[in-house]
Amino acid sequence: MEKKIFTERRSIRKFSEREVSDALLRDILTQAMKAPTTGNMQLYSVIVTRGEAERAALAPLHFSQPAATGAPVMLTVCADLYRFTRWCELGKADAGFDNFLSFTSAFADALIYAQQVVTIAESEGLGTCYLGTVTYNAPEIATLLGLPEKVVPVACIALGWPEGEGEPTERLPLEGILHEERYRDYSDVEVAEIFKAKDDYAPNRRFVEENGKANLAQVFAEVRYPRAMNEEFSVKFLDFLRGAQLLKEVENG
Amino acid sequence: MEKKIFTERRSIRKFSEREVSDALLRDILTQAMKAPTTGNMQLYSVIVTRGEAERAALAPLHFSQPAATGAPVMLTVCADLYRFTRWCELGKADAGFDNFLSFTSAFADALIYAQQVVTIAESEGLGTCYLGTVTYNAPEIATLLGLPEKVVPVACIALGWPEGEGEPTERLPLEGILHEERYRDYSDVEVAEIFKAKDDYAPNRRFVEENGKANLAQVFAEVRYPRAMNEEFSVKFLDFLRGAQLLKEVENG
Repeated sequence: MEKKIFTERRSIRKFSEREVSDALLRDILTQAMKAPTTGNMQLYSVIVTRGEAERAALAPLHFSQPAATGAPVMLTVCADLYRFTRWCELGKADAGFDNFLSFTSAFADALIYAQQVVTIAESEGLGTCYLGTVTYNAPEIATLLGLPEKVVPVACIALGWPEGEGEPTERLPLEGILHEERYRDYSDVEVAEIFKAKDDYAPNRRFVEENGKANLAQVFAEVRYPRAMNEEFSVKFLDFLRGAQLLKEVENG
Repeated sequence: MEKKIFTERRSIRKFSEREVSDALLRDILTQAMKAPTTGNMQLYSVIVTRGEAERAALAPLHFSQPAATGAPVMLTVCADLYRFTRWCELGKADAGFDNFLSFTSAFADALIYAQQVVTIAESEGLGTCYLGTVTYNAPEIATLLGLPEKVVPVACIALGWPEGEGEPTERLPLEGILHEERYRDYSDVEVAEIFKAKDDYAPNRRFVEENGKANLAQVFAEVRYPRAMNEEFSVKFLDFLRGAQLLKEVENG
């Protein structure tokens, strides 16, 4: 295993015309199934969007960001408690998976699977980019993809052969995320130190200027992820989970 | 990249006496930070548990399963909206991350990071096993590890040098999890077909017999993940999220 694939990893948002063959895609999706999964239940599904009309319908639900409009393949990875419940019902078993704990297990399964797909795809030379918008429009995506109850889109991967090398991005120092034995609380000075490289990174400084803000934190909290937007989509996503029969214990409790 | 690391991947629950060096562990945790993350916010932290007393205190919160009692290193990966909020507050920005949508972004970030750690560790020859119990006892784990508000344990990885090769496990056929363009609903016959290899797998058949059940689905739904247990831990985990200041929009709404 080359180290490069991890340490020089970049998201790809521009894709070439080169086709992603069905055989390669199926091989990647099959290999990735050996990823760890809660109790070996495989509480996930993946919906492949490749058709021109289908891609054109899905992209706006991701706010038509370039990776969404330009990718030849979109993979919507879902937390799926429907298939497992169906199997339990066939076996006359009382399937009690209509609750938040089961959803978190399926959410974890889906993300682990998604990241395994990303790693394997990238080891084949493909480029990928997650679209974090997948939970924002979960109801509309569910309708478009025909998801039954207990199936929740939680990760979307744009995938294709890369056009260009992608943009490099900075990361926090290890000390910023690592805690030995106990969570080490941060002083203000330490917080500033952890984010210093991020604050100083030239593209980020340009970003601050373009947005007319005093610093990068304000761009994140007030432009990119403002409170009102977060709260609006929170309520929408929780309503979706309720409608998908995954918060039954809250209604009964 | 060798295919083997993915297609022959096995969880490891028994570990040798060989020490996991601090340098190797730090290298793995550093490399993994290049994994994708929502808006490059890195909404995760990892707490390393290595001390003898600390491991002995953590294991019972994972129901003292063998991987928890025997691993030289336990990694608790947390969804962390605390550090980012602190940075925003330092910059006098209104940090609106005390809601469910922000939690789901951090949950995704944490699981993607965790799986990257697993892949890199395994590429170095280490063995790993996720402990799905991490969300069951989130409040107790948070207290033990000194987690501040807005930090939620969502993945736990037992890690060490493998003793033995681990048990092989079966997986569903690709058709069981793959949907082309739209979710293809399953007939009863198709559900039975998808789970046939799982139902027929010899260790699973022994498992059914040992538990005195009619089939494997009943073992999963009634013995391993019974409704009452799922619902109890759901309520507990949701209460924890509320206490961790991550469901503020529900209380205000």
